Parts: sequence; structure tokens; C-alpha cells
Amino acid sequence: MPDPLRQLLDAIGPADPAAAAAAAERQRRLAKPPGSLGDLEDVAVRLAGSAGRCPPPLPEPAAVAVFAGDHGVHARGVTPWPQEVTAHMVAAFASGGAVVNALARQVGARMVVVDVGVAGTVPADGVLRRRVRSGTADLSSGPAMTRQEATAALLAGAGVARDLVAAGARLLVAGDMGIANTTPAAALVCAFTGASPSAATGRGTGVDDDGLARKVAVVAEAIALHAPDAADPVGVLAALGGLEHAAIAGFLLQAAASRVPAVLDGVIACSAALVAHALCPVAADHWVAGHRSAEPGATLALQALGLRPLLDLGMRLGEGTGAVLAVPLVQAAARTLREVATLEGAEITAPAAGPTVAP
Amino acid sequence: MPDPLRQLLDAIGPADPAAAAAAAERQRRLAKPPGSLGDLEDVAVRLAGSAGRCPPPLPEPAAVAVFAGDHGVHARGVTPWPQEVTAHMVAAFASGGAVVNALARQVGARMVVVDVGVAGTVPADGVLRRRVRSGTADLSSGPAMTRQEATAALLAGAGVARDLVAAGARLLVAGDMGIANTTPAAALVCAFTGASPSAATGRGTGVDDDGLARKVAVVAEAIALHAPDAADPVGVLAALGGLEHAAIAGFLLQAAASRVPAVLDGVIACSAALVAHALCPVAADHWVAGHRSAEPGATLALQALGLRPLLDLGMRLGEGTGAVLAVPLVQAAARTLREVATLEGAEITAPAAGPTVAP
Repeated sequence: MPDPLRQLLDAIGPADPAAAAAAAERQRRLAKPPGSLGDLEDVAVRLAGSAGRCPPPLPEPAAVAVFAGDHGVHARGVTPWPQEVTAHMVAAFASGGAVVNALARQVGARMVVVDVGVAGTVPADGVLRRRVRSGTADLSSGPAMTRQEATAALLAGAGVARDLVAAGARLLVAGDMGIANTTPAAALVCAFTGASPSAATGRGTGVDDDGLARKVAVVAEAIALHAPDAADPVGVLAALGGLEHAAIAGFLLQAAASRVPAVLDGVIACSAALVAHALCPVAADHWVAGHRSAEPGATLALQALGLRPLLDLGMRLGEGTGAVLAVPLVQAAARTLREVATLEGAEITAPAAGPTVAP
Repeated sequence: MPDPLRQLLDAIGPADPAAAAAAAERQRRLAKPPGSLGDLEDVAVRLAGSAGRCPPPLPEPAAVAVFAGDHGVHARGVTPWPQEVTAHMVAAFASGGAVVNALARQVGARMVVVDVGVAGTVPADGVLRRRVRSGTADLSSGPAMTRQEATAALLAGAGVARDLVAAGARLLVAGDMGIANTTPAAALVCAFTGASPSAATGRGTGVDDDGLARKVAVVAEAIALHAPDAADPVGVLAALGGLEHAAIAGFLLQAAASRVPAVLDGVIACSAALVAHALCPVAADHWVAGHRSAEPGATLALQALGLRPLLDLGMRLGEGTGAVLAVPLVQAAARTLREVATLEGAEITAPAAGPTVAP
């Protein structure tokens, strides 16, 4: 493992249990019935643990990085969409016309687009050029990339997160674009959770039954070919992953190292999170699950990570869209802990069944 | 039925099917796989139908009205919290220290607090004075209020919505505050859905098993006493409701009349929506369900209204908090339809399985 990745992993610490406990205690003293904010209370406690203080800082402003890459496995017919759509969508991101652009505007998040491995030509303006190679090789007939390339993409993603934090971002979201990228995501989920290809593989952008059967077969071939060893996360990533999966894994690790919370999107981000978690389990203390994608692999990954998604809207677009929609919820959780009066401050004595309040 | 209420109901029209169909068609042409935005696509179509145009206007800014009232049924021991907490919480809303204040700030919504029936003294500053009476009577021993009072509270709520729209609001949220108010809400749900008291009644702010049994018994007594007739919505409201329930019903009707979408909160707002829906079924075309409250009556009401909630976070606070959290999602749905490029505009040809695009 090269030095820069080791340094990144060494910089990651776990959640601070004292700050998390203080947040849980403060939550109980706020002017509301205990527990009445449901999952939002858990998020607030998590943010305090990640930040190492209570109340946690307001995670604003948010920044979204959309990582784009192409996939050699596209040649296996795992999607009806042409590979060129990746580059076209990168252009759409750069011009502000994609769904994630509209959602980022809605929640007040800054957005950057990163070419970490597109096969075609992308616009010179408005795209960060971090291309490691022009698309991966076909993971079903050999490694998708070399270990060196996987590491370079990881570090490229980490660098983007570091730059966004240096520019002021206090909440990070990683999005993805890459035609065929739910196939490597499913393979990564199989490798790290032990799920079967048929359980982990979904319809992606909407393949028919034949297409789904083809995807499952390709994932099964890849798992049989590489016999991935979850104890060697970079090896698994190189064999089965995509360049955007690698970059997102690095992005999530850097978020953890910076103690800036990251919101996970769908199956691409969740499968990348499995890689990052395998490299450094406590990194997950700094992540919040934004939504449950319709892709089955996302749910399997979230279960393995022990994370409960905030939204469940049947979305399956990627781009970071589900996570961006969860940004105001994460910010609201922190804001509640920071701004709401205590029962005592509101001159309310809770009933005996509720929390005790000092006289 | 007095004239002003009749006028309000006559002003309400249904969704425009042509605008809704145009929105569904536009949704299919956007630069994304068809259906990939899940429930957000349905919300966008609903907003277009409500507004009568495609794309729909951006529902910004949002405004939240929190209606407060007290309940004679409090004397039956249906909650461990003292009745005075209603007035204390009104003071907390007025000073900006409650949860709903923090969440409204998060989503950029204006907030007003309305005393429509508090029993105690509320601050003179920062509270709209629309008190119809100082708390209801005990619904388990007689009508909670007169038909005239119920109608006055309905119209007070409608007036608040009208004023907010006149001041520029383009998305409306109704919140509630009223110690013991989940008991009348459960009774209203029973009256309008036919559910049993044990199915419709929940733990509210968190009563224990004995408290829950007491609540269920009180609701059952009230239903037996009044034998509510769903065909007489104002009569049911007067017999079983609260003043904040009545005001919220009027608020939701005025939103529909103004063709400004309203976001429903938890069991109080949903039970009020049942009253409004019984008075004018097409009013529901202009509402979006913000969240699924932990209170069972909320789910029963949403089922009866045919609405699917956007959030499901296990919240049970009221105040409008769940609906306020859904505000950015509703705005994002409209923004997607307004701002995202078409496949054609992004120079993407969808696969044959997807939508056909003109060359």
C-alpha cells in the first residue's frame, strides 16, 4: 500500500463517545417529548460524535462532487444505454442541466464534476480533470484496473474532498455517473457482504428480464474469476470496481479524516463505502445514509455498514440525487440540537414518565 | 351551513388533468431514466395538476402556521403533560425556540403562530389572536364545541391561509400545538374512516400502557355517545374535534381554493384533512403528505385520503415538524420539472426500451 493512502487511513479517528453521549442527553432535555423526533435524533447524535463536540457544528454549506467513469463491462450488454451517454451527462452536469444540479440548487449545495475515468471527450470547462484511465477493462475477463490505478483513483477522490473542505464545505456528498456502473457496484457488494449475485444485482436504469439475467451472470462470472478477498480491499476494488467507485471510496475516507460528515447516495456510493469501510472501519462513524435506492445492492451494503437511510422514495438515478435530497434533513438534525430551547428554558416540567428536569 | 364556508367550498376546483398529463409526459423526456426519481415524479405531477400548468410554479417561499388549542378531554387523564404546556409552547414558538422554529429556519419558511383556542394566557407579541373559545369541552361527555364555534375556527384557519398567500406564500404547512390533541384526532379518524378506537389511537407524546388503554376507552365512549355521521362533517368536528383541528381543516381548504399546495403533517393535520376532504373531496388534489407519523391514526387517515407520505422517520412531535422537513422535497420535485434538460437537449438517445425521443 503506497504511503499517501496509509497516511489518509492513519488520519481517521472514530466518533467521540463523550460528545455522542452529551448529544443524546441534550436531546432528552429539549422542549419536546423524548424520542419524538425519531431518526432525526439519531442523526444529531451521530453528527456530534463525528465532530467530537456537542452541539455539533451546523453542517453548512454542503458540497456535492459527481465522479464520472466508464466501464469495460459495458461490452457485455449489461445496459441498453450507449457508453457515450456518460460523456454527454458530464456535459449536462457542467452546464447545470442535470437532475443533481437542480437538486443541489434547491438545497444550497455547491457542486463539482470530476472526470476520474470517462472513456470519451468531456468539456474543458466546468469539469475537474482527474482521469486515471479512459474507462476500466471488462471485469468479467480480467481485472478492471491495476492496483496502482485503483489507488490513484482513491487518492484523486480524497483530494477532491480535501479541496472542498478547504474551500469551506462542512457536509460532503459524492455522486456518480457511469453507464454500466451498477454492475461493478453489485460485484463489490457481493465481495464485501457475501451476498449472491442474484441478490445483489438490480435493474439499474431499467433493464428488462433478459438484461437482468445477463447482469447477474456477468457478476457471477466476475466473482468466480477473481475470487475476491475482502481482507484486501484495494485488490477487490482493482479487480471488480470502477474508477468512480474508487474515487468515491477515497472521498468518503477523506471526509472521515477531516471529520466532515458525508451523506451516502445509492448503490454506487454504498458499494464504494464498503471498500472504504474495509480499509478503515471507523470511517463509517462519519457517514449518514441519505436514502434507500431501489437497487437491492444498496440495501445490502447499508445493512453491512449498520446504517439506516433517511429517505425511501424509490429513487434509482444516482448522480448523488438521493443524498442531496437528504442534506436539509441532516442539517435540520444538527440545527435542532443547536437552536431548540430546553424544557427548563421553556418553563416546562416534563411528566414523571419523561426526563427529569433540574428544578 | 353559513355562507362564508359555502363560498370557500365553492371556490375549490379539482386538479387539472391536462396539466398533470403534460407533467407526466415531460417527466419521461427529462435527461434521466424514466421513473428513476421515484415518488418525486408523482409529487411533480401532482403539483402541476394543482397549479393547472406544466411545469408548475416553484412552490417557494413556504409558510408554516402553527395553530394552538386546548382540550376539555385533558381532564380524563389522556396525557401525563399538564394543560399549561400548550400556552408555554405557544410562548416558545413566539420566541423562536421550539423545534418547528429551527426546522422552518432550515428550510427557509416563514412561520406564524395562531391562538385559535388556548385555555391559558399567551404572549401578546408574536401570536395571531384568533381564539374562538378558551379550550374545548370534554368530548367524552358532550360536544367538544358548538357547530358555530367549529365553523368559526374553520374560517379562522382559512383566513390565516388567505393572508399568508396574499403575503406571497406559495407552499403552505399547518402545524399544531395542544396538549391532549391526539385524542380528538383519533376520534375524528374513527368517525371518518370507520376504524376502531384501538386501531386509531396511539401513544401521542408517549403515554404508558395504562394511559393508552384510558385513551382508547375515552375515544370509544365519545364515538358511542355522539354516533358521528361522516356525511355531516361540521357536526362531527363540533362533537369530537379540537379548535386547532378545525382551523387546520379550514387552512387546507383555503390552500386548495387558492391552488397553493399544502403539505400535511402528522395525525392532527391528517385528521383535520379528513374533515376538509369530507366537506370537499377534490380539495385533496392540492395536498401532499409530508411524512408518516408514528401515530397509527395518521396512517389510517392517509390511506383514506389516498396519499403516500414522503418521509417516514418515526417522528411524533407535531407542530408541523414532519411537514416542514418535507418542504425541500416538494420544492425539489417542482424544480426538477422546471430546470432539468430533456434527453434531446442533452443530445442523448434513450434506448428502445426507454421513451422514444424525436430525432
